[in-house]
Amino acid sequence: MQNQEPLSAIRPEQRAPETSQSEFNAGAAYIDGNIVPISEARIPIMDWGFLHSDATYDVVHVWDGRFFRLNDHLDRFMTGVQKLNMTLELSREEMRDILARCVRATGLQRAYVEMICTRGIPAGNSRDPRTCRNRFYAFAIPFSWVATPEEQDRGIRLHISEVQRISPQSVDPTIKNYHWLDLVKGQFEAYAFNAHLSVLVDAGKHVVEGAGFNIFIIKGNTVSTPGTGVLEGITRKTAMELARQLNLDVEERPVHARELAEADEVFITSTAGGIMPIHSVDGKLVGSGRQDKTLQLRALYWEAHSDPALSEPV
Amino acid sequence: MQNQEPLSAIRPEQRAPETSQSEFNAGAAYIDGNIVPISEARIPIMDWGFLHSDATYDVVHVWDGRFFRLNDHLDRFMTGVQKLNMTLELSREEMRDILARCVRATGLQRAYVEMICTRGIPAGNSRDPRTCRNRFYAFAIPFSWVATPEEQDRGIRLHISEVQRISPQSVDPTIKNYHWLDLVKGQFEAYAFNAHLSVLVDAGKHVVEGAGFNIFIIKGNTVSTPGTGVLEGITRKTAMELARQLNLDVEERPVHARELAEADEVFITSTAGGIMPIHSVDGKLVGSGRQDKTLQLRALYWEAHSDPALSEPV
Repeated sequence: MQNQEPLSAIRPEQRAPETSQSEFNAGAAYIDGNIVPISEARIPIMDWGFLHSDATYDVVHVWDGRFFRLNDHLDRFMTGVQKLNMTLELSREEMRDILARCVRATGLQRAYVEMICTRGIPAGNSRDPRTCRNRFYAFAIPFSWVATPEEQDRGIRLHISEVQRISPQSVDPTIKNYHWLDLVKGQFEAYAFNAHLSVLVDAGKHVVEGAGFNIFIIKGNTVSTPGTGVLEGITRKTAMELARQLNLDVEERPVHARELAEADEVFITSTAGGIMPIHSVDGKLVGSGRQDKTLQLRALYWEAHSDPALSEPV
Repeated sequence: MQNQEPLSAIRPEQRAPETSQSEFNAGAAYIDGNIVPISEARIPIMDWGFLHSDATYDVVHVWDGRFFRLNDHLDRFMTGVQKLNMTLELSREEMRDILARCVRATGLQRAYVEMICTRGIPAGNSRDPRTCRNRFYAFAIPFSWVATPEEQDRGIRLHISEVQRISPQSVDPTIKNYHWLDLVKGQFEAYAFNAHLSVLVDAGKHVVEGAGFNIFIIKGNTVSTPGTGVLEGITRKTAMELARQLNLDVEERPVHARELAEADEVFITSTAGGIMPIHSVDGKLVGSGRQDKTLQLRALYWEAHSDPALSEPV
């Protein structure tokens, strides 16, 4: 993939003098104005971001020293904050600076970088969310994979769960959120079915999304992905752009669970791993087992990480 | 209501020597084996209880120095822990002791006492929940009201939201959980409609539950409350028991939104406030405005707090 570039030197004010670099290698977080080692990063138990999961977040990744599509992630994050009736006292430039400082503190060339806005703590004994001062947290940790490159090579086994993804009539999925109990239940189901991952369905048995990933199928020259009830993933968006570059037709439409059995190829997308081919669905090989178009898309995806139009140095 | 009883003396080992009682008056929490003032109580940002809202909890209250139905709350909590494939290293007796220590540290006679089990932090860079050591937290803060006694006297205004409560096909509502973004959206809708509270509906426009409360209607001699898709509230259970004592018929069944307009009385139940009469629904007075049966139930509810079969000293 890309060459490793040296990161900018860590500015001394970014860490307490008594903290050694090794404590930051596992990750760094921005909490209440300070950059601290991830092992020491704590949030108030009374923050409704925890007690009501009243929060939105976004994850951008750093690959070989460069943020990938940071502006897209910031756009989505700030839209989510607004949709939840929250406001932050930080400017977009200040957030960008905080994220970069977290990454630099770790010294990581490849990182998983999360920004979070929570409701905060209500005034006194109130139960009124309007009394809260909203809070911003961030952290950078080593890059994390929904399925590692080795698992991708050996073949990712997907299970179609009977658990329904939380409906958009309840929670707007375009606001990236921590409501994962359905996804966690699906994940335990995957283990029970000897699969790596589960994809959840809607009430009509259309596949929707899984724990941190969107899903696509390829049939002939057409790439299809669910268009509603899903997070509008940045990797999903990139995959659609790249598919059009390969002169594939791209459709956003409901995809029934049974279509996975008939597809030529199936793949998933996530900031945590990019474009990842699915080898089998509920024990049945996908298509003929060839993943030509998916692997082409995956190669283009990683090549795009050095494109200055899509990436920038930390 | 009840006389104030003196609480047992606070044992000195329950707090750090440099911490003054006044710091504990706002609340106390159990974190990693220590009892700390609520203002200092923090959890790791990496705990999936926060990052995936992968957690269950329960709230028991203390009234005039006595826990109310603590065994019921512990039963529900431990069932939720098990349903989420979590295990705790603490025994039921140890949890009971921790909750009491939190309350005693605050010196509060009337308290809102929360116990929490989170997934914890995965090992290394894993995304597998089975690698987590599950964590137990608890805290006690001053008693909190969904609607204060003064608001109840002036009349609680309820709004029927169009937001759908997260479906039981997605998240089991009998596992008390922090998936509140639908409830928070409903709460902002209530403010927009000049109401105190919102109740959410299901896909068929049946009322389900609101932010921390169950709902009931009374028509003639019959008390009805939704039987599925709701938290099995302990106050809900108490209200049903008391209604039967008053020789009312009690039904658990789907309750359509339009039935609230035709009901004689409407009330809500919560550990945070008990049995609370609703004065109006979407601007329309409930029934004739009389709340005779609800006020009778409310009086019985508070009387039950000194019943040794239902309560115990902290």
